This record gives sequence, C-alpha cells and structure tokens, in this order.
Amino acid sequence: MKKALSLAIAAALVAPAAAMADATLFGKAHFIVENVGVQPASDAVTTEAWGVDSIHSRVGLKGSEDLGGGFKALYHFEFKVHQDDSADGFGDRNQFIGLASDYGTALLGRHDTPMKMAQGKFDQFGDLPNGDITSVIPGEDRIDNLIAYVSPAIDGLTFVGALVSGELGDSDGQPGKLEGLADHTSLAAMYNNGPIFASLAYNTYDLGAVADADLSLFRGTIVWNDGMWQVGAMFASMDVDKLMDLNDVDSYGVSGHIKVGNGKIKGQFLTSDAPPINTGAFGMSPAVRITAGVNQVDQYSFGYEHNLSKRTIAHVGYTTFDESVSGKEVDALFGGLIHNF
Amino acid sequence: MKKALSLAIAAALVAPAAAMADATLFGKAHFIVENVGVQPASDAVTTEAWGVDSIHSRVGLKGSEDLGGGFKALYHFEFKVHQDDSADGFGDRNQFIGLASDYGTALLGRHDTPMKMAQGKFDQFGDLPNGDITSVIPGEDRIDNLIAYVSPAIDGLTFVGALVSGELGDSDGQPGKLEGLADHTSLAAMYNNGPIFASLAYNTYDLGAVADADLSLFRGTIVWNDGMWQVGAMFASMDVDKLMDLNDVDSYGVSGHIKVGNGKIKGQFLTSDAPPINTGAFGMSPAVRITAGVNQVDQYSFGYEHNLSKRTIAHVGYTTFDESVSGKEVDALFGGLIHNF
Amino acid sequence: MKKALSLAIAAALVAPAAAMADATLFGKAHFIVENVGVQPASDAVTTEAWGVDSIHSRVGLKGSEDLGGGFKALYHFEFKVHQDDSADGFGDRNQFIGLASDYGTALLGRHDTPMKMAQGKFDQFGDLPNGDITSVIPGEDRIDNLIAYVSPAIDGLTFVGALVSGELGDSDGQPGKLEGLADHTSLAAMYNNGPIFASLAYNTYDLGAVADADLSLFRGTIVWNDGMWQVGAMFASMDVDKLMDLNDVDSYGVSGHIKVGNGKIKGQFLTSDAPPINTGAFGMSPAVRITAGVNQVDQYSFGYEHNLSKRTIAHVGYTTFDESVSGKEVDALFGGLIHNF
Repeated sequence: MKKALSLAIAAALVAPAAAMADATLFGKAHFIVENVGVQPASDAVTTEAWGVDSIHSRVGLKGSEDLGGGFKALYHFEFKVHQDDSADGFGDRNQFIGLASDYGTALLGRHDTPMKMAQGKFDQFGDLPNGDITSVIPGEDRIDNLIAYVSPAIDGLTFVGALVSGELGDSDGQPGKLEGLADHTSLAAMYNNGPIFASLAYNTYDLGAVADADLSLFRGTIVWNDGMWQVGAMFASMDVDKLMDLNDVDSYGVSGHIKVGNGKIKGQFLTSDAPPINTGAFGMSPAVRITAGVNQVDQYSFGYEHNLSKRTIAHVGYTTFDESVSGKEVDALFGGLIHNF
Repeated sequence: MKKALSLAIAAALVAPAAAMADATLFGKAHFIVENVGVQPASDAVTTEAWGVDSIHSRVGLKGSEDLGGGFKALYHFEFKVHQDDSADGFGDRNQFIGLASDYGTALLGRHDTPMKMAQGKFDQFGDLPNGDITSVIPGEDRIDNLIAYVSPAIDGLTFVGALVSGELGDSDGQPGKLEGLADHTSLAAMYNNGPIFASLAYNTYDLGAVADADLSLFRGTIVWNDGMWQVGAMFASMDVDKLMDLNDVDSYGVSGHIKVGNGKIKGQFLTSDAPPINTGAFGMSPAVRITAGVNQVDQYSFGYEHNLSKRTIAHVGYTTFDESVSGKEVDALFGGLIHNF
Repeated sequence: MKKALSLAIAAALVAPAAAMADATLFGKAHFIVENVGVQPASDAVTTEAWGVDSIHSRVGLKGSEDLGGGFKALYHFEFKVHQDDSADGFGDRNQFIGLASDYGTALLGRHDTPMKMAQGKFDQFGDLPNGDITSVIPGEDRIDNLIAYVSPAIDGLTFVGALVSGELGDSDGQPGKLEGLADHTSLAAMYNNGPIFASLAYNTYDLGAVADADLSLFRGTIVWNDGMWQVGAMFASMDVDKLMDLNDVDSYGVSGHIKVGNGKIKGQFLTSDAPPINTGAFGMSPAVRITAGVNQVDQYSFGYEHNLSKRTIAHVGYTTFDESVSGKEVDALFGGLIHNF
C-alpha cells in the first residue's frame, strides 16, 4: 500500500503497532543469602562474610513466526539482571536469530556452546557462584559471534555444531590470526532414551596472539534418571601441550540426587588436575577456560531443594572448594529462592 | 515427564514458552524541560542553561504465583531509563524476589529502605533533580543486598524492617568490617487511618573502614490529607558525633497541596543544618547520605500539577536551593509530562 | 480513594498491576555473517576477517492513552541489543514522551532528527555497518535532549521541527555556550503523493567550545516508487567555512531497487567531497557529523533481499568504500536474516 509517509510517521508516533508483536516475556528470579569463608592461598587471615546475591536472575523476550513450507523464523534476546550496585543494568545471555525446519535449526548470535548444551542435567548446583561445575570443569562457555546448527532428534540422537569467530583481527601485525568463521569450534552428540542421557563433546580454541598455540577439549557426560533418583558422571580432558608443555589436564565429576517428598537431596563431587582460569589473558574473545599449573582442585557440594510449586523452588546448600598445593579453601553456605516465569 | 532432552533443546529454540509467563510490564515516562541557574559557592560567574531530561523514567517486569496454603511467590525487576548520551542503557531500581502470606511479606534483593518507604506521600516534588527531598533530608536510600520484612496492616499499622549487607569484606586487613547480614539496618512503623498518615523510622549505618564509626538516623513523618488539601511535616536527626565530633544534624520539612479543579497547587520548604553528602566516600556500599560541616541548607519549591488523565500528568514548578555559609545557590524552573503505564 | 498506605505497600509487593499496562513490545532481530577486508590509508598490509554481528537489533516498549478532547499521550522506549562481548547489555535508540492531537504531535526526549526522518526510504542498506548512507552522507543523527513537533499531513505535506539542547554548560568559562534550548536545530518538509516522496531538510549545529563556529547542513531527497521499481536521489551540502576556511562539502547519492518475484535487487552509489567524521571532537553532545579535509569518498553497494514473510527477510550484499586521496579501501561481503516483531 502506498500511504503517505508523512501520515505513517505521525501514526508511528501515536499508535501502538497493530497486533504485530507476538513476543513472549520470560525470565527467572533467583536470589540467595550466602556466607562465604575464604582461606587465601597465602597464609593471610581467613575472611568470612555474609551477603545477598542475584544468581543469574534474567529476563528475556522471544518469539517465532511460521514462514510456511515447514520453516520457522525465531528470535531470542535474554539478559542477566544484576542486583549489586557494582554492576548496574543488564548483562548478556543467549541472544540470537534462527531458522528452523524439519531438517534442523540454524542460528546466529550469542549462545551456549554445544559442549555446554551437552551437560544435560548433570550440574546439581548450576548458576551458583560456589557450586557450579564451571569452577572446576572447563567447557561451560557462552560465546558471541557464533553460527550453530542443531539437528532434529532421530531415535533420541541429536547433533549440535557451532563455529565461532574470534573477530580479533590482526593483533600482532601478522594477518591470519582469529580472522575466520571457525577460529573456535564446538561439536556435541547427545543421546536421550528413557532414563539415559549421554553426550560427547569436543571443542577447539585458537589462542590467536600466542603463536601456533591452540587448545582442544573433550568432554563426556552420562546421566541416569528414573524419576526417583539420578546419578551422573562427567569427564573432561584438555590438551594443553602446545601451550604449556604439560600433560593433558583432566577433570572428573559425579553428581546425583534422590527425591524426598516434594523435594530432593543432592550432592556433587568434582576434581581437576588444575584450576580453570579464564583465557581472556590470551586475548581470546570467548570465555573459554583452560588450566594452568599443577594444583589439584576439589569441590564438594551438598544441598536440598524444595518445590514450592512447579515454578518456585527454595533451596539450601553447602560447598567446599580447595586447591591442594596452594592451600586455598573456600567454604560457602547458602539458601535461596528461585521463581521461573 | 521424561521426554528426550534433544527434542527439548530443539523445541526450546523453536517455540515460545507455553503460556508460562504471567509477567506484567509496567513503567513511567517522565521528561522535563528545565532552566537551571547555578551561583557556585566561590564567587565564580553564575551559569544558566536550558535542558531536556528524563526524570527517573523507568520500565519493569513483575509477577506473582499462588503457591497454595496462603503463600505467594513474587518478583519485581525495575530499571531506570536514561535519556542522556552520557549514561546509555539502563540503571537499576527495585529488583527482588519475595514470599508473601497473611503473616507478611519477606523479600531479598535491591529495594527502597523502610525509611524511604515511610515517607508516605510527603514529597511533592519526588524524582525531580531540583526539588526532591533527597537534596536536603537524609534517608532516601535504595540499597542492594537487602533482606526485608513487611508486616500485614493491622488496624492501619504496618511494620517494615530491613537488614543490609555491606559486602565490602575486609578492607583494612581487620576481619569484622562489613561482613554481616545487618551491617546497616532500617526499621519503620507506619500508621494510616482515614486522612492521617504517620511514620517513625530509624536507620543505622556501619561506616566500615572508619574505625569504630557508625551513624544513626531517625526520621518522623506526618501527613494529613482529606482529599481536598494535604499538609505534611517531616523531621530527621542524624547522630554523627562518633564520626565528626559535631552535634546532631537536624533537618526539617513541611509540604502541602490544595486541589484546584483537575489539578493541584503544591509547595514545599525544607531546611537542614548541613548539606547531605553521599557517604560513598566512606567506603559504604549503600547510598546513605550524611551531613558534613555546618552550612545551613534551605530549599523552597512551588508548583502546579494538572491531571490530563488518571495516568498522565503535566506539571510546572520552581525550586530554589541555597547554602547559607558557602553562598551557593541553585534556581530551577521546570515543566514536564508524566505518563504511567 | 483513601486506602491504608500500609495495605497499599503490601499489595504493591504482592499483586501485579491491575490491568493498567497497555505496553506494546516490539523489536527487530538482525544478524549478519560478514567478510570485511580493509586496506588501510597507509601502505600497511590489508587485513581481512569473517565475523558475526548484531545489526542494530533492538527491543522496545511503547503505548498511548486517549486523553479525551482529541488528545493522546504516548511514550516510546527503544533499546539497541548488542551481541558482542565488548559492548554488553543495551544501547539507546529513540526514547521519548509525547502529546498528539489533530494539530500535530509534540515530543520530548531522544529521537532521530527531522533531517534523518526525511530520508524516506532512500537508503537501501540502512543499519549495515558497511553500506548505510551514514558512512558518506552527513545528517543521520539520533539526538538526546530534543523537543520536536510533527505537523499533521495536509495534502501529502508534513513539517517536522526539532530543537536540541547541547547541555554542555560553560566549558570555557564564558557563559553563553550551548546553554539554550535550540543550540542545534533540525527542520524538514516532506511531500508524499502516490509514487513520489520528496523532502528538504536543514540543520544548524552550534560547535560550542570552538569560538564563533557553527555548521549548517542542507539535504534534499527525492524517491520515486511505483511498487515495481524505485529510484532515489539525495544531495547534501555542509557549510563549513566558518570552521575550516573550506568551500562547502557536498555529498550525492543515488539508489534504487527492482522487484524480482518475492524479493528485490538493489543498488546504491554515494560520493562525497570528504569523509564524514564525528564532531564529538568538537565537544558536541549530538552525534552530528561534519567533513574535514579534502579526500573524495565513494561507496558502491549491491544486494538482494528475499521476503520469507512480511516480517522476515533474508539478504545478501556487497559494499566497497574508498577514499581517493588516502587510498583507504574497505570491501564487505555480507548475508543476514531480519525478523521484525
């Protein structure tokens, strides 16, 4: 239709869009009260403090449109809600556009890596600053500049692959560093059948500024859940020899829970040859984590979750984290409330 | 239900969440045109400028869920909308999760202190950069890391209490500073019956890094409103002797309005022994305000509000602020438009 | 109504707002995959990189209220969604409050200038980091601290005017710089009748800190669109002699597209006497762009858009940009997906 633009401008200013929006609002409110004691690596005095935290509270907007011919367009914009004054406003979570069909879904933007997607429901203390597997086991990355493909599920089997652009350009005057669409890659295969979930995932990271160095990470996960109880195991091995002339850095974890009335008792034990550190130090864009130095890390967590409804959960828990060589130890006692919407 | 996770992943990417969201969007658009003249404390030249400002324009998302047994879960995420290029994106307002029952409401997160909640509708020029009582009277704090309880109203009487964690840890090598759940506290009792609103509130602030120093603040408010006219009075007294070897710093205010047709004429006079300053300088996390030095502050404001609808208000006003010793003076003339949604 | 405030507080905490919100959510998801090659102005090595970008993806909230008597209140809060880790959270787009009637619409806040509004649909590569006319032709400004008026359309003719406050105050000790409501101005007349769109626009910029210097910019646009094909031409002339003792800096552009099945083939050629630079260097608040030095700039763009639906568009394109004197050249090949909601 060829209406007057001038009219259109005035109309756009005055009227809400005509029934065009099908955006769905969603999110999660998760706050905890926490007591954290830290015994530093040096022999400094142990500090202990209480606090209140927002645990990856989030809001988002998503929607999809049927394009006909078996295709759908979809979008998803999700943001982290900080609560502390030191980090005002919003942070970023998954944000992407996609195209879905019977042959799978392609997406473009920021997203969890396939390796992270492939943890299934292994992590019993996800999101918690003390307790999440990310403190011990590498591979829990959400990355921008990602192109991903999720296959349809066939006989319970799904494949997911992602290419990630480093977009750092030419940091040392030598063209060819982090300039491609697949500077980093992540691949995962997931199998889900009845009580069994199993996955294998493999990541490669290009360290760019560090000449000829790159990392690879393999992770396997298996979870058994019969509705009453769950047990899971995870193994991750990072090949760091090109970087540090070390052997592989291996990490292991077991987790589980058992239903008790309207809640569940849960536990998790994780161990690694070395503490994960953020490779931002190597000039990488994605928040990949590698391990440096030999310094065994152990993390034990126990807790109880109580379902106040399908969407509202109260929980309490305890985590202890220690590094065997440095002597660092962190103990956290926490209780919180989660509401999904 | 034990559906294939692989299916769930694909589905999560493609479909909007199934009728789970009950999030309510709300907010306020408030912009003004303002002329501000500043005569600095020194004998520098007076400056005067026109400008356009967003006055705590905001958007938010909130919702609640009936948990059964008389309990409700609730959440509230509210954000300030900046308009000036110098502060892009969003700022933070109240953001919390809560649990409500007939025995009161508990909440966790960032929120106005009970003292701020207890001002009732005393402030006739709330939010305005020139005019709000926050320029003269201490106690208008919104604080993160807060645990609060709001009692049910019994015979018009409500109690509200909040504990606030400083979360600064151990800033001077001495464990024990700002490490608790109640480093700062705020308590308020409010009485509301017919035309009468009255409140008493008491805050304590732990100054942490300043050895052995803490502040306390008492504030009382009374407002009479018979629908046609309103008068209110406020008194605040801050005990600063541990900190500055001064007497208490006292602040007073009176305010009122009278309905005229579809609008109201309003006025407000505030005075204090000393100008409030932000105690961030003392290393405190909450934006408490204390007074330093003896330098009487006066602020007079007059204005007119016109209701264009129940949700839309046009207003004009004038505020003059001066410090008697330094000679600083600020005069502001403003007109604005408010729309609540 | 005079309900107990204490009750109101508890209620506000517990219940969602009663059917008050009429906020409409809207937005756009636009992501591209891009290969960009840059031959710098110096004889440094050409760099080339692939990447994934969010192209001014956005979300917003808007609404209006009928005030009676032919008046409407309206608000619009729109935010840019970044995707790259280097710019977390949200950026700002148009954010304003307004009052509309049969006599036109007045608005207050941040908004595109009338000159930017008056480009019609000339730009065939809008938003794209390589391709948008903003790289060559000045006048594409979105400015905070703006007061605007949009006339009703009479016989296809619409007038728009805006006053912009610099709000920089007195940066050099001399009162009188960027202190008014109309430090910068933008005026536009738009004519729209059948296949013809034509506009004239004129901006003035006060450079504030640069004594006695100001800029003016004239821009004319004409677009013919009969539904099957479109051709457009744009001319802009910036008077910079007060600033740089140069002649006017002129910019020209032609653009067009032709429908092919469910899509369109499009092309655009832009040229200017000098590359636009951001005048932030001159201490101006609005992102106006001026031209400095004599260095002809050319930008050619070609592309194809395919409508997957009325709201979803796939596109591919190529842009080449070069500066004739410096020798700088940028070549970009891109493909993307757009979904409006």
